Amino acid sequence: MSRPLILVTNDDGITSKGIRQLVDAVKSIGEVIVVAPDSPQSGMGHAITIGETLRLESVSIFEGIPAYACSGTPADCVKMAKHHVLKDRSPDLVVSGINHGSNTSISVLYSGTMSAAIEGAIEGVPAVGFSVCDYSSDASFDHTVEYIHKIVQNILDNGLPKNVALNVNFPPKRNERLKGMKVCRQARAKWQEEFNERRDPNGRRYFWLAGNFVNMDKGEDNDEWAIANNYVSIVPCQFDLTAYHAISEIDANWDL
Amino acid sequence: MSRPLILVTNDDGITSKGIRQLVDAVKSIGEVIVVAPDSPQSGMGHAITIGETLRLESVSIFEGIPAYACSGTPADCVKMAKHHVLKDRSPDLVVSGINHGSNTSISVLYSGTMSAAIEGAIEGVPAVGFSVCDYSSDASFDHTVEYIHKIVQNILDNGLPKNVALNVNFPPKRNERLKGMKVCRQARAKWQEEFNERRDPNGRRYFWLAGNFVNMDKGEDNDEWAIANNYVSIVPCQFDLTAYHAISEIDANWDL
Repeated sequence: MSRPLILVTNDDGITSKGIRQLVDAVKSIGEVIVVAPDSPQSGMGHAITIGETLRLESVSIFEGIPAYACSGTPADCVKMAKHHVLKDRSPDLVVSGINHGSNTSISVLYSGTMSAAIEGAIEGVPAVGFSVCDYSSDASFDHTVEYIHKIVQNILDNGLPKNVALNVNFPPKRNERLKGMKVCRQARAKWQEEFNERRDPNGRRYFWLAGNFVNMDKGEDNDEWAIANNYVSIVPCQFDLTAYHAISEIDANWDL
Repeated sequence: MSRPLILVTNDDGITSKGIRQLVDAVKSIGEVIVVAPDSPQSGMGHAITIGETLRLESVSIFEGIPAYACSGTPADCVKMAKHHVLKDRSPDLVVSGINHGSNTSISVLYSGTMSAAIEGAIEGVPAVGFSVCDYSSDASFDHTVEYIHKIVQNILDNGLPKNVALNVNFPPKRNERLKGMKVCRQARAKWQEEFNERRDPNGRRYFWLAGNFVNMDKGEDNDEWAIANNYVSIVPCQFDLTAYHAISEIDANWDL
């Protein structure tokens, strides 16, 4: 039997530490190809490049592994990998990350890491995004490897429900060992924004988006709870945004 | 009673025809403020600006209406409007558009128009995105006004289900009058990508993302059916991406 073909991408860019860790983690499991952004694309959400051109260059930065740097977004990378680089062959799995920083809860919407995974699901390919809830530049990824192996092997063995991509978050490395994995729902939380106002050398105003994460969720079945309690969180995500419960409510109450 | 405060934004940029039509459509209903991108932001999905600075400038381009051009994405515009421009006062409604082009089905994920509306919902503000399924530069918006009035008035009178934003699409203007409104689900469809390869004047390759919309949905309760049959489609959208049905399926089948 031929080895599974695993497409690796991310949103921190092809030279980041996290994608190198992910390549190292999955190369024993299958044949690997990398198509990832040529520069950091954090916070890009599900952006695609439609008003500008795209570049794609072959790069030799992972030993023995074909890799391409793309000028576009994470979602662009998956599209280019599937429809241009690979063409006649579909990957068996898309893995995205390892992201430097949390993609729990509402952050899934803003996440380039997860947009790549969701793009995989749209293309009918099992897909998973990995993130470590640690923003420090020297964040450790060592504790993730064992779980990445388990998750990837489970997906290859059992598949994923149709139209679903997994959002996997790891707690920051602590002294205590990880307690295991929890399949969760997305926590009800939001970013409370602040805009940090400054003046440029010409005296003109500019802003930095800043903000605090506010968790309104008291449940124990969500990803924030899992991370806080030293579990790996796994949230299955879908790309049908329809709020089905709201259809009948609007139909009943509105004068259509 | 004071008039409702309506925040207007879009993704085609503050100088586009569509946002002017939307301002004209809602200014009879409430007090209007505009915070919109200073340049086109189509296809930006739910991107936010986290690695770069933001600019915000007051502009006088809508008679008697305060307006601000922001260098960020549609989602940034809603955050800046709520947390910087308005600060102590929350808008009663966020309206986004009118988008030049369709945001039906899977396009909701890539849509800057809808990311602004969904950002409104995250902030707890009723929100709606409007799009016309016509990409031509001289697309007519006349047929939308009557329905924008109805929808906005219904939201202000009846509210919206919690954590829901509406994705409203209008058919292109045809000879036949619109048949009415349908509350729908998101159609099961995708973009079949193609990459148009060219050479720059220096002989280096570049690409344009191109693609065809492929509708796999045979149902009559979805937005694609509504548009094809000359109805206004209204899809309630949520920002909890959890695929709840998949949680137990993964729990049961996986070796966790």
